[in-house]
Amino acid sequence: MNLNIIPVKWSDEGVLMLDQRLLPTEEKWLTLTTYDDVAKGIKDMVVRGAPAIGVSAAYGIALGAKSFVGTNIDDLDEEIDYVSGVLAATRPTAVNLFWAIDRMKKTFQRARSEGKSVNEIKQILVDDAKAIHDEDIESQRLIAQYGGELLNDNDTVLTHCNAGALATGGVWGTALGVIRGAVDQGKHVAVIADETRPYLQGARLTAWELMQDEIPVTLITDNMSGHVMKKGRVQAVVVGSDRIAANGDVANKIGTYMVAVLAKRHGIPFYVAAPLSTVDLNTPTGDEIPIEERDIREVTHVKDIQLAPDEATVSNYAFDVTPNDLVTAIITEKGVARAPYIESLKRQFED
Amino acid sequence: MNLNIIPVKWSDEGVLMLDQRLLPTEEKWLTLTTYDDVAKGIKDMVVRGAPAIGVSAAYGIALGAKSFVGTNIDDLDEEIDYVSGVLAATRPTAVNLFWAIDRMKKTFQRARSEGKSVNEIKQILVDDAKAIHDEDIESQRLIAQYGGELLNDNDTVLTHCNAGALATGGVWGTALGVIRGAVDQGKHVAVIADETRPYLQGARLTAWELMQDEIPVTLITDNMSGHVMKKGRVQAVVVGSDRIAANGDVANKIGTYMVAVLAKRHGIPFYVAAPLSTVDLNTPTGDEIPIEERDIREVTHVKDIQLAPDEATVSNYAFDVTPNDLVTAIITEKGVARAPYIESLKRQFED
Repeated sequence: MNLNIIPVKWSDEGVLMLDQRLLPTEEKWLTLTTYDDVAKGIKDMVVRGAPAIGVSAAYGIALGAKSFVGTNIDDLDEEIDYVSGVLAATRPTAVNLFWAIDRMKKTFQRARSEGKSVNEIKQILVDDAKAIHDEDIESQRLIAQYGGELLNDNDTVLTHCNAGALATGGVWGTALGVIRGAVDQGKHVAVIADETRPYLQGARLTAWELMQDEIPVTLITDNMSGHVMKKGRVQAVVVGSDRIAANGDVANKIGTYMVAVLAKRHGIPFYVAAPLSTVDLNTPTGDEIPIEERDIREVTHVKDIQLAPDEATVSNYAFDVTPNDLVTAIITEKGVARAPYIESLKRQFED
Repeated sequence: MNLNIIPVKWSDEGVLMLDQRLLPTEEKWLTLTTYDDVAKGIKDMVVRGAPAIGVSAAYGIALGAKSFVGTNIDDLDEEIDYVSGVLAATRPTAVNLFWAIDRMKKTFQRARSEGKSVNEIKQILVDDAKAIHDEDIESQRLIAQYGGELLNDNDTVLTHCNAGALATGGVWGTALGVIRGAVDQGKHVAVIADETRPYLQGARLTAWELMQDEIPVTLITDNMSGHVMKKGRVQAVVVGSDRIAANGDVANKIGTYMVAVLAKRHGIPFYVAAPLSTVDLNTPTGDEIPIEERDIREVTHVKDIQLAPDEATVSNYAFDVTPNDLVTAIITEKGVARAPYIESLKRQFED
C-alpha cells in the first residue's frame, strides 16, 4: 500500500483538489484560489464524499479570510459569514459540510474574543482547517484499525460506491479504510467493487483507488453482487454511509439495501464504516431520512451517449435505507457498535 | 397496443434482423444473406433473447441449406452439420438455440429418409424455420393469455432485462407478453424496467418496446429495485428465462437472482414466463447450466467512453440462476406451472 491518496490539500497558492470527475482516465489537480472556486468545486463534484466535503469547506473559509484585504475585524466577521453562506449552499445532504462551517465560525469567534488581530486570525483559521483535515484522517485511521480486525486473512470483501480515501480527508477512507486496515495488519484481502450506477463511483473511483494501493480489486456491475455471493466469492460486505439513524438504520448510496438483503440470505456479515459525525441521534429511524432524487440524465446518458428512449420516464433515487436488522456492525473511530444500536451508538457519543 | 414488433424476418434476400444494438436511438434493419452472417448476428447481439436466438438459428440453417450448391445429399448432410456447429458455438446459455438446431436437423433427416431431393429439402427447411417462427409467436400469445390472468388491475410490474417481442419471434414476448396479456384483458398495468447493466437491454429495449405499445414504463438502475419494492411500488415481478432446469431453477439475465431474493423479502410474487422450448428436462438443476462470461469491455466502456481504469480486473457474468424456491410460478404456452416443478414441468411436456 502507498497510502498516499489525499484528494484535497492546502497550499500557499490555494486549495488543491484532485478533479474526481475526470478519474480514472485523467489525474488532474485544480488550484482553487478563491472561496468561490472551492464552493463551485464542491457543487460540481470535483470533490465528493461527506468527510471530504467538510474538509474542503473548512479550507474554503480559510481562503476567504486569507484574501480579506481590510484591517477592521467587524468587516472580517461579516466576510466570514458571507463566505460560510456561499459554502453552505453547495450541497444539502452532507452533514459534515455544516459541521465544518460551524466549527470554523466558532474558531473565529473564540480568536476574536481573545483579542487576536486580523492577521493572527487569518493564520488561526488556516491552522484550524488543517487541524480538521488532520483529525479526519486520524478518524479514518482508527476506523481502519478497528474494522480491519473484523476481516480474516484471505477474505474477499464486496463494497458498493466509493467510501475511500477520495471520499474523505484522505489516506485510509471509511469502508476502504477497513480493507486497508486489514491489509495493514498483514492480511491478504481482495475486493469486489460494484460499479455503482448511475454515477459509477465504484468503477471510476474505488477500482482506481485500490489499484493505486495494489489491493486486488475486481469490478462487477451492481446486478452481479448476488451471483458472486452465491458462488461463494464474498466473505464480507463493507460500505460507508451518508447518515446513520439513532436506531442503526443506514442511509447510503442507492443499491446498498439490495446488497444487504443478499448478504443476509448468504450469511455474509454486512459492515458499515463511518465516522461518528455521520451518526445522527436526532434522526430516530431510517424512515425520517430524506432520499434525494437526482437529475434523470445521470440514468439516461453517459456523457453524450443516449442510453434510453427520448421522453422515457425515469426514477433516479440517489440513496436508500438499509434497516438495522441487516447490519452486522457499525465501525466508527470509537470502535465497533453492534445491535441494539439505539444503545451502542449512544454509548459511543458518551465515551 | 400496436403489437407489431417482429425483430427477425425471413425474406427471399435472406434473414432480416432489426439491429438491436442501435436501439433506441436508431431503427436499422440488416439483411443477412449467409448463415455465417446470422451466426455473427447472434454472437454480436444484433438479435438476443432466447426464443429470438432459436428462431434466428433455424433461419440460419435454412439459409445455409439454401446456399448449398451441390446435388449430393451426403454433402448437404455434412454442410448442415457444419452450419449447425457454427450456429451452436455462438451463445452457450440459451437452450432454445440448441433446441431449434436439433429440430432443424431432425427435419432434415426425416425429409432425407422420405427420399426428398436436395431442392425439396431446401424448401422443407425454409418452411420449417418459418413454422418454428410462427409457433414461437403463437406460444407467446398463449403465455400472454395465461400470464395476464395472474396480474391484477392497477398492478405495477417490475421486469429485468428484455423478455419482450424483441427477445422472441415477436408480437407479444414472454415477460412483456404477460404484461401485454393483462392489458389485452382490459387491466391497467404499469411497468418498472431495470436498465440491466452492462448491456442495458432494459433501458434500450424494454423501455422502447413498451413505449411503442403505450404501456406506462418507468426506467430505474438495477440497484434501485430493492428501494422501489421497499416503497411499495411493485406488486409483481415478471421475467423471462434463457434456460429452465427440470427442477424449476431458472437461468436468466444477470441480476434476476437479486430481484428474486428482494421479491421474496417483500412478499411480491416472482413469475417466470418462457416457452417450453426454454425448459430443458435434460438439465436436472441450475447447477448444471453453463453461465456465459462476456467481453469485459461491456462493463468498462459505453461505446468509446471509458468507465473504469486501464487494466482493471472485471467479471462479466451474463446470466445467473434463480433457485426454484424463489419462483412463484412458471408460465408457458401450456399454462401455469407451480412447485414442485419437477412434476409440473414434466406434466406440461406430456400434455
